[in-house]
Amino acid sequence: MLHFEDFTPGRRFEYLPRHMETAEIVAFAREFDPQPMHMDEEAGKSSILGGLAASGWHTSSVGMRMMIDAFLANSTSQGSPGIEFMDWKKPVLAGDTLYGFSLVLDARALRSRQGVGMVRFRNEILNQTGETVAVSECPIMFRMREATR
Amino acid sequence: MLHFEDFTPGRRFEYLPRHMETAEIVAFAREFDPQPMHMDEEAGKSSILGGLAASGWHTSSVGMRMMIDAFLANSTSQGSPGIEFMDWKKPVLAGDTLYGFSLVLDARALRSRQGVGMVRFRNEILNQTGETVAVSECPIMFRMREATR
Repeated sequence: MLHFEDFTPGRRFEYLPRHMETAEIVAFAREFDPQPMHMDEEAGKSSILGGLAASGWHTSSVGMRMMIDAFLANSTSQGSPGIEFMDWKKPVLAGDTLYGFSLVLDARALRSRQGVGMVRFRNEILNQTGETVAVSECPIMFRMREATR
Repeated sequence: MLHFEDFTPGRRFEYLPRHMETAEIVAFAREFDPQPMHMDEEAGKSSILGGLAASGWHTSSVGMRMMIDAFLANSTSQGSPGIEFMDWKKPVLAGDTLYGFSLVLDARALRSRQGVGMVRFRNEILNQTGETVAVSECPIMFRMREATR
């Protein structure tokens, strides 16, 4: 079980590969982001995205799942207060396979919550050709191994 | 059809109310953010969230849909390069009804893409008691009414 103390600056957690299917791209878009380039092949091709492309919110949510599977599920995570920034740098197209990593930037104890610390991560998602498609930085809270400090 | 020129600083677009059902909170979490407080009532109650609470990514994706329905579907939107920040300020609990607005912060022509401009929005999501649950700022590109300028 990963605790606050395990998230030392520079530590890196690798994501498992994740294939992006047409059907799931369209299903997510229908529910949350029904713009033509996220739901229709032809509309995607004639957009600046160049093909049927996942909503940025879909890519971001898939990135969350990759973080869960890579390290958060096996941690004392107490959730996150938000996202510092999220850049969608390249389109995620139907058929792409994503991978990536989370890198620990820094970590500090919280004055406001004893026994809990805040860890800041840089998260990068890449596609099968090695292009970075999304970059974000976010803080996540974790319980400490030592109850007090 | 809303074009770049229609997004004048200070203009505000109101969202329609959106009820958050237990089933959809759990379904989203199972797929993208399977942490106990997003999937189980008891786990939510014993977490700092105080009840079965939507994943922040779910709230953010619902916010995207509220923006689509409020103004983006009826616009020349060309998509967004990312999110400047997203703060999840209060838990979104099962049974909450969300509403909110997008406010135009500023707008500028893009040098890199003729006939397209970038509009920055502040987006706020509130719950039925008037508490702000999420705040974000993001740029969105729109085609101009006048092809050149």
